[in-house]
Formats: sequence, structure tokens, C-alpha cells
Amino acid sequence: MGALPTLAVVGATGAVGTVMCELLSGRRNVWGEIRLLASERSAGRRVRCRGEELTVQALTADALDGVDVAMFDVPDDVSARWAPVAVDRGAVVVDNSGAFRMDRDVPLVVPEINPEQVRNRPKGIIANANCTTLAMIVAVAPLHREYGLRELVLASYQAASGAGQAGVDALHAQLAKVAGDRVLGSRTGDVRQAVGDELGPFPAPLALNVVPWAGSPGDGGWSSEEMKIRNESRKILGLPDLKVSATCVRVPVVTGHSVAVHAVFATEVDAEGAREALRNAPGVILVDDPAAGEFPMPIDAVGTDPSWVGRIRRALDDPRALDLFITGDNLRKGAALNTAQIAELLATELTTPH
Amino acid sequence: MGALPTLAVVGATGAVGTVMCELLSGRRNVWGEIRLLASERSAGRRVRCRGEELTVQALTADALDGVDVAMFDVPDDVSARWAPVAVDRGAVVVDNSGAFRMDRDVPLVVPEINPEQVRNRPKGIIANANCTTLAMIVAVAPLHREYGLRELVLASYQAASGAGQAGVDALHAQLAKVAGDRVLGSRTGDVRQAVGDELGPFPAPLALNVVPWAGSPGDGGWSSEEMKIRNESRKILGLPDLKVSATCVRVPVVTGHSVAVHAVFATEVDAEGAREALRNAPGVILVDDPAAGEFPMPIDAVGTDPSWVGRIRRALDDPRALDLFITGDNLRKGAALNTAQIAELLATELTTPH
Repeated sequence: MGALPTLAVVGATGAVGTVMCELLSGRRNVWGEIRLLASERSAGRRVRCRGEELTVQALTADALDGVDVAMFDVPDDVSARWAPVAVDRGAVVVDNSGAFRMDRDVPLVVPEINPEQVRNRPKGIIANANCTTLAMIVAVAPLHREYGLRELVLASYQAASGAGQAGVDALHAQLAKVAGDRVLGSRTGDVRQAVGDELGPFPAPLALNVVPWAGSPGDGGWSSEEMKIRNESRKILGLPDLKVSATCVRVPVVTGHSVAVHAVFATEVDAEGAREALRNAPGVILVDDPAAGEFPMPIDAVGTDPSWVGRIRRALDDPRALDLFITGDNLRKGAALNTAQIAELLATELTTPH
Repeated sequence: MGALPTLAVVGATGAVGTVMCELLSGRRNVWGEIRLLASERSAGRRVRCRGEELTVQALTADALDGVDVAMFDVPDDVSARWAPVAVDRGAVVVDNSGAFRMDRDVPLVVPEINPEQVRNRPKGIIANANCTTLAMIVAVAPLHREYGLRELVLASYQAASGAGQAGVDALHAQLAKVAGDRVLGSRTGDVRQAVGDELGPFPAPLALNVVPWAGSPGDGGWSSEEMKIRNESRKILGLPDLKVSATCVRVPVVTGHSVAVHAVFATEVDAEGAREALRNAPGVILVDDPAAGEFPMPIDAVGTDPSWVGRIRRALDDPRALDLFITGDNLRKGAALNTAQIAELLATELTTPH
């Protein structure tokens, strides 16, 4: 068993890192030592992982020595600084931040779609896509294989935990403030007043509201989140000219990103053919019987691995277009799970004799 | 002042009727008597309207005698039965239900867009559009005039009050149940268990969730709500071949429907030109400065008259397409306000010598 590779989880105490420790406890065991790393502030905390109590260590260059695969679940700037250090110390990095996703020398891998890209890593770094892209793309890729994707028009319903633990804390704090009052939400300004400055990482109250903004301002009025979905979808699917228009909106949900998708293809589509393609696709669960109350929703998808897809309709005015609705757990497939899946591909590679 | 017409508000004690009484108190006074009618159950209730305490009367044929304009804010079946009775007794009916909207002999009027249609009423009935259509169409029509609309791809974020007072009550009751628990929404099934059978008019819990379904099942997997938006947009804009794909989703907001819009036009568009057209459009307020936290949101739009529009972007991959976000108060412009505006056009007609 000495041959099993050593894994480091960098950012082990954050919202994604916490889910990662849960996940590693339940998945096939391909790791030798698991080392939990985090900021100086979190060092010394005890975390259960794979049935063991592990002590979180501070992230230093020395703490990365002997690591074969390092998963990074930290902010962009921390990844930008520390991922190259991990590579220098001999690790392959799987990075969940936005720091390297659009780097030509860093593959953007979704194991259900382009697993072969894992071997194409000149910098020793493999990137994980944005959580909204991931939930959506797993269900869109099988339709692309069937019909040839040409265009995506997307509107998102993104959960608070997409903004980390601070987002979850802010939503819960806001809900506690508005929940008692049966008038709140019926008059202008009431919710703003009740929530006060308890905004957390959001630009406006999220309780009893929807906030059509995520990320930072980009060119032409587009948000960074909207640009990520466009650029990452193109890179993952290998479609550099794919037309993409996304509107990213935060909703008062704890975990579970949803996306309303209008997809235009090269050939005519039919709803039953699309359902068949999705029924057989890896990482997807089809829930499409509205009359029976079956459609994808965050409260059902949270804590599960697949992307839930339903509401599949052929567009009434375009025989080449499908409308559908997708929900995925943004902390699992949208982050920790996809990272773990990539790391497991690496573990197989590292332990397979050439 | 004896010449001022008599107005009946049918359904005066419902969610829309209540807002109607508030609205009538604040608008230019064009009415003589105002008569409040409702079901037998609500008869005898006292309601303030225009500074007077009025007693709600039961809806009967005799109660409609002498009425010049009757506004109906009641379910489809009640409108279908009683609107013709009101017409028989000499009233012009402005109906907010879905009973007559697609009738060729009933105009579907949005005063900012097609006020001239008010005179074209062979059945004595004028219909008010669906609340989601109304919030959206007021801001899309000025762009159609500028660029020539060809296609709409829509995703909605619809509030609980779109399902009436029962929807509002259910959301508040659900929020009270989930607000205390800081774990709820993080694990599968927790929210379903906490909410129990307190679903109200919704097919699933709305608190900490989004529900991609509104209305009843139609052909091809489309919901009645999605079909309404398509059919009504075509009728109001006079574009029978307009391509429309809508996905209707309920969100945990009390009041204020939002719509993410991808609109394709006949000619090239530019974001600044679109903003200029919207700045000068009636019934619209432009809020489009994301860096300053300015975008349309339910907590700001609730209780106000206009459609709030922002997030205006030219599509990166189609010079003829715009992406934008619109929020409107579904009980005001989406229902009571548009009805009142139509009724006021009738009041002017009735009191203007020929």
C-alpha cells in the first residue's frame, strides 16, 4: 500500500473543502496519506476525513513536500501564488479557482466530457471549471454529441454558497431577520431596512429577493461570472465559436445552482431523443414529468453527485432548439466532486505501470 | 360631477383587488361611485378606498346594475361566467383573468403600447395580460419600435403573490419554518421535511428553493404560463410570427416578477441606443449601473408603477441581439395598475362628448 499517492487538500476548511472531506470519506479509496492544508488561521483544527481525525496544517512550501496530487479550493490569488509552489515541490495541481482556467497551457477538465485532457498539462496544473458552468455543461454535452451545439442562451439561479461560507452565513442571517414579519417583501425598501448592512459578500439583500449580478464588472456590461460561463463552455466542448449569452442571477437558495437553457443545434431535435441521450449520459439524472411534480430543483439536487435535468421541450418556433432546466450541487459537481474526479484520474495514472 | 362614471371592482378583497383599492386612492380621480364586489364569503367587509370606508357587496347581477366600467380580478371561471352578465347590464368589462385574452374579439391592451385597441371591443370586454408578460413587454416594446423584434428567449423569476394571497401566505409560513435552522438547505430533503405539507398553491416548497413550473401542463412539455407569455406577447405587439421560448420559474420572493431577456432584432443593436430608447419610454425606469449596485430587483420594484430594466448588454456573438433583465410589481403593472389604466381610458371615452 506504500504505492498509493499522497493527496493534499488546500483550503480544507472552506465551504468547498468541507464538502471535499465528506466526499473523500465516501468515494473509492485511491489515496495513501491525505494532508489537509489551510490558512494559518485554521491551522490546528481537527477535521474528520475517511474515518480519521486529521489536524489541519498551515499552507507552507514545506507542507507540500512529498505530495503527489494537490487539490486547491482557495481564492484566485492564493491559487495563483501557491499552485506553482506545489508543482515545484513535485505535485500535480487540480485547481478549483479561476486563476488558470483560460491559460492555454492548462486543460479545463470535466471527466464525463474530456477526460483525455488530463494528460495534456505542460504546467503541471489542471483547472476545474466554474460551478455554474459545471452544473450546466454535464447535461449539455450529451445533447451536443447528439445534435451539434451552435448556441446557448442561459439564465442562472445561483445559490448563496457559490459565494462561499460567507454567502451561506449572510443568507441565513438575513432570513432570520425577515422571516417573522408577514408584511416584509410587500413594500418597497422594507427588506433593505430589515436586512440592514448584513449583506455578506452580496451587493444587495438576497432574502426575499433575486440579485442579477455575480462577480465583477467586465466589458460591455457583462459580469465576470457571465464571461466565465461563455469562455469555459467553449474550452470544455472544444467549440471556440460557440455563441453564448448568459445572465447570472443570485437567488435565496443555500446550495444548488440552476440554469434555464435555450440551446440551438446544427440539426433538428426532438424532445424524446434528447431525453434518451440524457438517460444514458454519465453524471446526469433525468427528472422530467411535470404533471407528477418532477422537475430539477435545488432542494432535491443538494448533496447529490449528478446534474439534474428536466423540463425538456422542443422550441415551438425553431425545430433546431431545445429548452431545458438543469440543477446541480455547486459544492459537489460544481466544485469538490469534479476536482476529486480529476484527482482520481491522476491517481490511476500515477499507480499504473507504463 | 354627476357625469362621472360608476366603477365596479369585482374581486375587491383578493391580492390584486386589495392593491387596486390602494391604487385608486392615489390616482387622478375619474370615477363617480366606486362599488366593491366579491364572493358571498367576503360580503359585508369594510375596505378603505379613495378615503371612504366602503362595504363590500356580494357579486350578483343586480349589484352590476348602473355600472359603467367593471374591473374583474377573479379566477378564470368566475370571469367567464360573470363578465358577460356585467356586459348585459351595460358595463364595459376590463378583465384580468385568462378567460378572454386569446379571444379574437377581445383586445389585449397595454396602454403604453396599444391604447387604440381599447375602442375595438365587439364583446364589450377588454383583457389585461398575464403578470409576467406585462412586466416584460412594457420594456421590450420600445426596443421593438427601435430595432424590430424577431425573437425572445425568456427565463422568469416569479414571485409567490403571482399565485394570489394563498401563495404569499404559504411562502411566509414556509420561511418561518426554515429560518431558524442554519443547516436547512444544505442537505437533500431537509427543506421538504421542514416545510411538510405547507405547500399552498405550489407543487413543491418555495422557501430556499426555485420551482421551474407555473400553471398547468400543456402540449410538448410547455406550461400554461409559458404558453401565455408567447401568445400574449405576439398579440400585444401585433407580431403573430414572433419566435418565443420562455421558461417560467417560481422563486422565494413575495412580490415582483423578474425576467431575463435575450431579444433578437431585425437590425444591429447597440447597448447605449437601447438605453436611450428605454430612458424615454413610458412606464419604464432604467437602472443600469452594476458597478454602483444598480440593477432591477424585486425589493426595489415592489410597490412601484414602472417596469425596472437594466443589465443591458449587446450579445457578444450576435450584433442583432440584446440581453437584459426586467423586474416589475406583478400586482401593480402586472395586474391592478394596467387594469386601472385601461379603465381610465374608458372613463375618458365615456365622459368626452362625441
